Amino acid sequence: MANPSAVLYAQEDLRIEDRPVPEPAAGQVLVEVGAVGICGSDVHYFEHGRIGRYVVDAPMVIGHESAGVIVGLGDGVDSARLGEQVAMEPGVPDRTCEQCLAGRYNLCPNVVFFATPPFDGSISRFVVIDQFFAHPAPAPLTVEQAAMAEPVSVGVWAARKARVGPGDRVLVTGAGPIGLFAAQVARAFGARSVTVTDVSEFRLGVASDLGLGALSASAELDGEFDVLLECSGAPAALRGGMNALAPAGRVVLVGMGADTVSIDVPLVQGRELTISGIFRYANTYPLALSLIASGAVDTDRVVTHRFALDQTELALTLARRDPRSLKAVVLPSA
Amino acid sequence: MANPSAVLYAQEDLRIEDRPVPEPAAGQVLVEVGAVGICGSDVHYFEHGRIGRYVVDAPMVIGHESAGVIVGLGDGVDSARLGEQVAMEPGVPDRTCEQCLAGRYNLCPNVVFFATPPFDGSISRFVVIDQFFAHPAPAPLTVEQAAMAEPVSVGVWAARKARVGPGDRVLVTGAGPIGLFAAQVARAFGARSVTVTDVSEFRLGVASDLGLGALSASAELDGEFDVLLECSGAPAALRGGMNALAPAGRVVLVGMGADTVSIDVPLVQGRELTISGIFRYANTYPLALSLIASGAVDTDRVVTHRFALDQTELALTLARRDPRSLKAVVLPSA
Amino acid sequence: MANPSAVLYAQEDLRIEDRPVPEPAAGQVLVEVGAVGICGSDVHYFEHGRIGRYVVDAPMVIGHESAGVIVGLGDGVDSARLGEQVAMEPGVPDRTCEQCLAGRYNLCPNVVFFATPPFDGSISRFVVIDQFFAHPAPAPLTVEQAAMAEPVSVGVWAARKARVGPGDRVLVTGAGPIGLFAAQVARAFGARSVTVTDVSEFRLGVASDLGLGALSASAELDGEFDVLLECSGAPAALRGGMNALAPAGRVVLVGMGADTVSIDVPLVQGRELTISGIFRYANTYPLALSLIASGAVDTDRVVTHRFALDQTELALTLARRDPRSLKAVVLPSA
Amino acid sequence: MANPSAVLYAQEDLRIEDRPVPEPAAGQVLVEVGAVGICGSDVHYFEHGRIGRYVVDAPMVIGHESAGVIVGLGDGVDSARLGEQVAMEPGVPDRTCEQCLAGRYNLCPNVVFFATPPFDGSISRFVVIDQFFAHPAPAPLTVEQAAMAEPVSVGVWAARKARVGPGDRVLVTGAGPIGLFAAQVARAFGARSVTVTDVSEFRLGVASDLGLGALSASAELDGEFDVLLECSGAPAALRGGMNALAPAGRVVLVGMGADTVSIDVPLVQGRELTISGIFRYANTYPLALSLIASGAVDTDRVVTHRFALDQTELALTLARRDPRSLKAVVLPSA
Repeated sequence: MANPSAVLYAQEDLRIEDRPVPEPAAGQVLVEVGAVGICGSDVHYFEHGRIGRYVVDAPMVIGHESAGVIVGLGDGVDSARLGEQVAMEPGVPDRTCEQCLAGRYNLCPNVVFFATPPFDGSISRFVVIDQFFAHPAPAPLTVEQAAMAEPVSVGVWAARKARVGPGDRVLVTGAGPIGLFAAQVARAFGARSVTVTDVSEFRLGVASDLGLGALSASAELDGEFDVLLECSGAPAALRGGMNALAPAGRVVLVGMGADTVSIDVPLVQGRELTISGIFRYANTYPLALSLIASGAVDTDRVVTHRFALDQTELALTLARRDPRSLKAVVLPSA
Repeated sequence: MANPSAVLYAQEDLRIEDRPVPEPAAGQVLVEVGAVGICGSDVHYFEHGRIGRYVVDAPMVIGHESAGVIVGLGDGVDSARLGEQVAMEPGVPDRTCEQCLAGRYNLCPNVVFFATPPFDGSISRFVVIDQFFAHPAPAPLTVEQAAMAEPVSVGVWAARKARVGPGDRVLVTGAGPIGLFAAQVARAFGARSVTVTDVSEFRLGVASDLGLGALSASAELDGEFDVLLECSGAPAALRGGMNALAPAGRVVLVGMGADTVSIDVPLVQGRELTISGIFRYANTYPLALSLIASGAVDTDRVVTHRFALDQTELALTLARRDPRSLKAVVLPSA
Repeated sequence: MANPSAVLYAQEDLRIEDRPVPEPAAGQVLVEVGAVGICGSDVHYFEHGRIGRYVVDAPMVIGHESAGVIVGLGDGVDSARLGEQVAMEPGVPDRTCEQCLAGRYNLCPNVVFFATPPFDGSISRFVVIDQFFAHPAPAPLTVEQAAMAEPVSVGVWAARKARVGPGDRVLVTGAGPIGLFAAQVARAFGARSVTVTDVSEFRLGVASDLGLGALSASAELDGEFDVLLECSGAPAALRGGMNALAPAGRVVLVGMGADTVSIDVPLVQGRELTISGIFRYANTYPLALSLIASGAVDTDRVVTHRFALDQTELALTLARRDPRSLKAVVLPSA
Repeated sequence: MANPSAVLYAQEDLRIEDRPVPEPAAGQVLVEVGAVGICGSDVHYFEHGRIGRYVVDAPMVIGHESAGVIVGLGDGVDSARLGEQVAMEPGVPDRTCEQCLAGRYNLCPNVVFFATPPFDGSISRFVVIDQFFAHPAPAPLTVEQAAMAEPVSVGVWAARKARVGPGDRVLVTGAGPIGLFAAQVARAFGARSVTVTDVSEFRLGVASDLGLGALSASAELDGEFDVLLECSGAPAALRGGMNALAPAGRVVLVGMGADTVSIDVPLVQGRELTISGIFRYANTYPLALSLIASGAVDTDRVVTHRFALDQTELALTLARRDPRSLKAVVLPSA
């Protein structure tokens, strides 16, 4: 096949098929994809055929945590970029709306985002992307590490929203890939302590290996925290975490789970807590890549499984089958 | 009586009794109280004998929205202050704890606050207070206007937490005294538009008279808002208001009502909303007084009833009896 | 002439000549220009043929404070915009660089700005501009008021940089058009007081008419200020203003004059002052237009002279000839 | 002697004499002083008898970078603190003024600061201090490390003012003790890179040993920086550093030297730079101590010389005599 791609037709109907190799338009680059992480959203589309109002009603290539090498250039792109290893920021905004001009391009209503219907994702041998959203990710970063700039960006954005800084005691509820990345980012932002909670002993072990504080989600939280990065989507985790916050504490809702959570108003008022939601990220890729490159954020320990492109369905069902899995990566060019 | 005072003994048991005239300690002033606004918390203590964990288990003078004239000085206070009209900021923090040193003295765990058990309030002929919390409120401010610096401070604090600024479209849910003050403060902070909602036609009429946008709480909100100051305590108002927020919108929980509210996580995430609780205020009195003095915040229209000190119980039960009441004020020295 | 334009060939060599009517490219609109304010930079180019490293080495249309009516549409522009009155934001950034993506598009190194060599300005009968930089400016705004959104934007940006807010005592040094607009903006941002200084009695009279505090630049400043908006470019004004700042005071360098100013280090340290420079503005036009429309910023009193397009040279030399002039406006379609 | 103390009588007239052991007042603790760092201000008082408007016109104990052990308690202090090792924050503000209530207690006009006339400093065997300004500094911190919390606090405050955060490229001009501490703090705040410049090969060697980038002050700066922490007091360093700043760069004036520096206005405007001065610090001690305890800030490498109390004059003249000195520490209880 010229351009083998992992195409979701409907719920539980994933097919590997050949797609035409795309032509980079002016300002775009053609990337040979080296690695694509599997995100919970990919699994959710596979299992349910939709996420909320986004419905897979036409075949759609999945995947959006991706990196590769530039192998073709559209008009107007510097020819020096040929051969460059890049991490692909998956959402290209319109850059003309009020949100974009204000620097909040993640809230652009017209964003084109990999693997969000109706736009194809990046589990393909070849994809095109705007040159400015293909971020340089030079060796010694591996292509897999470069792909992890996407979930690490979520951690960077969460830490920024929470204004994590030196001296902060940070609680991260949920030790999945996002939680583990967010926790490491918080440490890199100078947090005095970072504690991760989860129900899984396996995940807590990984947290521990990464040098993070690790605590069973059923344990009593001792001490108080300045920041809660809620990465589990579990209402109980949010509730427990908020109770453990110090005055002027900050909460960021990162995890997706229950559509509705109840919050304790006298608690939020009495301690003057602030709760923020985050949606993707903006202006995070260079920092995410630099944190991975410096070792401040270890992604190798979080990527537990690797698959060839024609095994994408195995990657999507891995979490169901193996409780000792964290992040799966598909290697389209392997 | 030397110092007639409105003393709450227990639920629905308010007595007017004589208290000794207090002696100002070093750094304190003795104030002859001219006006004390009745706050919802006073009514709540009267009706329930408690607010959450604060229980009236010993007789307590009520009232905390107060102003008067300095008639005595403790050691170390500038004698020029004798005769000065002052607005009394009701909570005096310890000024030595971490919260105080950080400028968040409203979160001081050791604050002494008028009419919060076990501390007496200010519906007395005479009270003492720290000199620095007796803020100059010179004529032409009336003593009643000066007393309103307390609820106006809540509005100032809410507007600051919400970072209300020029260009913002502000929604205020709830047109009680706090909502009406917060809305006027938001306008003074440069808001492009301020819309107040309530279920009461009377209150909406007052909002309208004050030049604010006024909308029935049952009406459809049209347009979108940048800021929601929730002053009603009604979960439905919070829910409706949040749905009407623009991306990057900010919510401040001002009103007290339901102890628990449920929030829509995908909404908070998808629009990157921020929700903050507030607890009293810090460093607001000079600005509140200046907004009242300049006419930017009209308090006269919000004070609907006045009572002598021995009618305090009538003031506390006014809201039950008269749906066309807003703020009641007790005049201890009248 | 099809498209009469005011073209600067070199120092003191301005010619009115016909230019081809431009064709709006995709995403652009064609605007029939109704009003263009004369800025100090236009005068400087005329008098010196350059501003710093920007040299007029090829004929260049001057002018950049402009508004008009949309009379033609490029591909992809909503046809409903035909006939719309618009204020033209004169700098169109590349929207792809790091500065743009961060929301600081005014610092874009690739910006195309009216009347900054080598780009033509807007004293023409017809110009084209990106649709998103042609901001709706509906009646009852006059086209002249709409054109003033440009210098008012400078005031908005200065006030934002200085974080002017309620309670601030603001000093504006220099009562030229920029100072008078900045001062009115500061008032609209909720400043407690706004004081303008200048050497000209005429300008101070205008400040006074606008309801601003007005003080001779040679007078002693009494009291202290929280914010200094330096709009004169005079080192003495900066020095005097900084001396009058309260602890934690903020200075914004708006005016251009001396290339070098000396600052008093112990003063800046001892009071922890902050000094910021500003360069143009970003995301200010909607607010500027709304402040003009609401009357919060009065531009009519600041525009003192009006000229037809073929009198542009008179407009450029007005300040030399008439000390009682403030802002001159050229009306290309009159 | 009961309480040997290093007393400055006048320029170049330092005497070791016995002072009465002070009694801790209510809320104070008596501290047996273990270590006091020598600051440039101590040297300046010794050499000149004054610093600006602060004149040594009565005998004054010098020294303010100090730590020790609590050996006595005033009324109202928790008896558990007896025997506690503490770092003494040298300035005790009034905690009642506008600056204090706003959280800017470093700008308190009534602060009592060690070794600032007319207040005695801490090069004594015993001193008293407010309990809340005697910060717990438990082992394994040495008393000398605890004393270094003072100059490290200057670095923390500088980094906070500059909003140093992850991804920032930080330039520190001047590799004296303050520069070396500020640079390490910036790294702990997550800076992507930290470069220190100095004229001294010795000091650059120490910077290098501490893992910081080190560059001769006469070398060309390559690349650009987001933050400049100017710690040399040299106008040329400020000028060169500012030229190397990226758009939206931030400058903090830390060093004291020339009373006046000239700044390039078009540079500050064109790149929208921000320049802040700092004065001492507020709310920094717990973080400074935690950075030292964790090893993020190495103070041992910066303390190059140690002296007994009766050798204080040697400590004060060390810098004159030994170009290979950095921080000298006096050990009053040794």
